[in-house]
Amino acid sequence: MSKPVTIALDAMGGDIGAGVVIPAAREYLRRDHETALILVGDDNILKKKLGPHPFGERLRIRHASQTVAMDELPSKALRNKKDSSMRVAIDLVKSGEANACVSAGNTGALMATSRFVLKTLPNIDRPAIITALPSVTGQTFMLDLGANVDCSAEHLVQFAVMGSETVAAVTDIANPKIGLLNIGQEEIKGNEQVKEAHELLLQSSLNYVGYVEGDDIYQGGTDVIVSDGFVGNIALKSSEGVAKMIRHFMTLEFKKNPLTKLAGLIAMPVLRAFRKRIDHRRYNGASLLGLRGIVIKSHGSADKLAFMNAISIARKEVSCDVPHRISEQVKTHLEKREIA
Amino acid sequence: MSKPVTIALDAMGGDIGAGVVIPAAREYLRRDHETALILVGDDNILKKKLGPHPFGERLRIRHASQTVAMDELPSKALRNKKDSSMRVAIDLVKSGEANACVSAGNTGALMATSRFVLKTLPNIDRPAIITALPSVTGQTFMLDLGANVDCSAEHLVQFAVMGSETVAAVTDIANPKIGLLNIGQEEIKGNEQVKEAHELLLQSSLNYVGYVEGDDIYQGGTDVIVSDGFVGNIALKSSEGVAKMIRHFMTLEFKKNPLTKLAGLIAMPVLRAFRKRIDHRRYNGASLLGLRGIVIKSHGSADKLAFMNAISIARKEVSCDVPHRISEQVKTHLEKREIA
Repeated sequence: MSKPVTIALDAMGGDIGAGVVIPAAREYLRRDHETALILVGDDNILKKKLGPHPFGERLRIRHASQTVAMDELPSKALRNKKDSSMRVAIDLVKSGEANACVSAGNTGALMATSRFVLKTLPNIDRPAIITALPSVTGQTFMLDLGANVDCSAEHLVQFAVMGSETVAAVTDIANPKIGLLNIGQEEIKGNEQVKEAHELLLQSSLNYVGYVEGDDIYQGGTDVIVSDGFVGNIALKSSEGVAKMIRHFMTLEFKKNPLTKLAGLIAMPVLRAFRKRIDHRRYNGASLLGLRGIVIKSHGSADKLAFMNAISIARKEVSCDVPHRISEQVKTHLEKREIA
Repeated sequence: MSKPVTIALDAMGGDIGAGVVIPAAREYLRRDHETALILVGDDNILKKKLGPHPFGERLRIRHASQTVAMDELPSKALRNKKDSSMRVAIDLVKSGEANACVSAGNTGALMATSRFVLKTLPNIDRPAIITALPSVTGQTFMLDLGANVDCSAEHLVQFAVMGSETVAAVTDIANPKIGLLNIGQEEIKGNEQVKEAHELLLQSSLNYVGYVEGDDIYQGGTDVIVSDGFVGNIALKSSEGVAKMIRHFMTLEFKKNPLTKLAGLIAMPVLRAFRKRIDHRRYNGASLLGLRGIVIKSHGSADKLAFMNAISIARKEVSCDVPHRISEQVKTHLEKREIA
């Protein structure tokens, strides 16, 4: 039997920490028999919360004495928390003991620590954050979601290469369609970096389909949408905000009076099927791309199902060796540009 | 009797043109007896479509021989369409014959033409586009929505002043809470312009509440959200995209089979009440702020109800004299800064 894939879990990260990570780990191992998980965090707490389990060596605990707070400054976490559950989980990836790690902790600290410990891949200047989002026709991947606020055209092109290769690796789309996020007005179309990136992408070997607008994210037709981290983060958060408001108003209307409550009861199976389609938990797990290792960020408020999904993403990226693929693709891309 | 407020309507603008503008004008005049409307466009077409009406001098036609296409380059429209329905409607504001104008035409051309004909207010470098969006607690105004792609900190502060004064004028909020759109990660928080604008706004006399994130747009708590036009446009379009996808999936689930159709029928009054809450038609009408005149942009695909709403916004801005208020507020704001 070959060595199982091992994934390190930051068991103290996120709003709930071990209370979510342990149940998610147990349930995940019940479904996937070829993976081992390492729970990283306070030995005492984790042993007590974990209790007896049937997974043997597939579920181990690794002690880490510190925890990074959700609002801790990344630079402080990096300097002062060398034995944090987050840091130790990333160290396990660096040493090769784990093939990937998952954390629901502070995004800034996770990015800064991953970058410091693992380093970026050759020819990648900056890591970027990518995630899948639901769309009318399936799903759309989007990056960067907040790692980089000021991006040059060249950075945007690197994001496109990373996004293309990741999506080709983890989905069955061989040559993903890449779009560049822009606004639709003629002449004043795009800022300088976007215009320049557009020209570079047109010359690249990527399957670049051109500019897309904010609403295209959810309409399908593009597999990967590229933007700088400021714009990407705002697009993502605005979308979450609208979805939350819609849920709020729908609940409000169905709870208005006994008659509407009855209507809600009758419509329940339909509403449930509908909610399942856009269930954000099914999309939980954002990848930090461009590093010499696989790091997955789970949402801070992820529940068991959502955290399991983040573990699945890590597992998939390990089996496809996403960092290696990105590294090869970037090399090819650069070589082509030098010849051209 | 005092002279009625007069609003010029670009009757040829938008995806449908006169087919929407004329019914909206008729219905609007039926409800508001103190306003007069001028339909601007092709005399022959408009006369035929309008037919007899009971509004006398309150509904007139002004001939314009040209039409600006929805995809026409703003610079070309400005140069070649000096007798377009859009241009003549704006000219009527300039000459004082109309107090405001409304167009569902090409946004870029409307902005370029308005700016050329009406000019910006003293101490305003760039006009900005503002609109109201629904929120859990009521509504949030947001600017800029796409007029300016690269903004300095000083531009963002001007937008804040314009937004504050407009909302104070058209709502009953005396001192609107202003937020600056940003991303939430510590240290890498914001790009340079946003950080600098934050410092300037903290020193200003505005009711500035600090940074807000994308999801805050729809959660309420802030009355005006300021961003550059690139980010604002992406936030708006992404939100529209999500809402559209949610509608799509909901319809799909309710139409799945006879049983779900029945459930949909029973839940119909609730779903209708819910839809009304987030009906984008009730929010149609974006103001071009910072000009020496009132120009309202209606959505290109607006229907009768939506277009009527855009006329109402024009009407309200006329009675509050928004341009004058902005001009006074900017002066006060600059004087305070000079003293400080």
